Amino acid sequence: MFNLDPKLQQDCFFVQDLKISRLLLMNDSNYKWLILVPRIQNLVEITDLKLEQQIELLQEINLLSKILKVNFKADKLNIANLGNVVSQLHIHIIARFKNDVTFPQPIWGNKPSKPYDKEQAVALIDEIKNLIKCQSNF
Amino acid sequence: MFNLDPKLQQDCFFVQDLKISRLLLMNDSNYKWLILVPRIQNLVEITDLKLEQQIELLQEINLLSKILKVNFKADKLNIANLGNVVSQLHIHIIARFKNDVTFPQPIWGNKPSKPYDKEQAVALIDEIKNLIKCQSNF
Repeated sequence: MFNLDPKLQQDCFFVQDLKISRLLLMNDSNYKWLILVPRIQNLVEITDLKLEQQIELLQEINLLSKILKVNFKADKLNIANLGNVVSQLHIHIIARFKNDVTFPQPIWGNKPSKPYDKEQAVALIDEIKNLIKCQSNF
Repeated sequence: MFNLDPKLQQDCFFVQDLKISRLLLMNDSNYKWLILVPRIQNLVEITDLKLEQQIELLQEINLLSKILKVNFKADKLNIANLGNVVSQLHIHIIARFKNDVTFPQPIWGNKPSKPYDKEQAVALIDEIKNLIKCQSNF
């Protein structure tokens, strides 16, 4: 049984379940900010996963990285597991742009988040799901 | 040919070369802060590595994670590729403690760094090298 941490649930939109992880979109329109949460209970560190599971997760990170880099034209990707506040293992995958509100600083704790309009969020989630579908065909 | 970025060279101590990466220790005694730099020219993103190379890197991340978690008793690991300032691909692997100077904030940009005394750095580097040697025997 997998339960998503209540703070992640509150701060993010559900996008879709991938092979090993739940994909979330952070509700902060300052960034294209995705989060992968492996759907296994009681994980805290990446090393709590077996190597085969880590490789599955790595392939999901690669898929989303390519979408943010190629389709959304990110200047730089920020990929991180911090978990100092929410301990449930989750990986941030963020498209950074040289003109975003905090570049080159890290995004955490530097600016208040800017929630999406509902239509904007729905459109972006649809776009991401379509891009995943296209990438998965190759 | 592999050239280490001048800023990484200036801010870090060399620890040792692992199979794919150069291991560095950040010269900031506020944290146990390791950095892995894959020894391949012109890398910026993790996706610039082939999957086999990513898996090598992942195994080096696992090795160092275990040392920070088990031997240095970290409360939490922070593992990240940001690269907003130094573009050469490098992975931060940081032991966080609930009583460290910035916990639970991320460490980047939050506190001025506190350089090691020379003897302190040499002793820590020796300790890390010994732990790697021990781990590699299992």
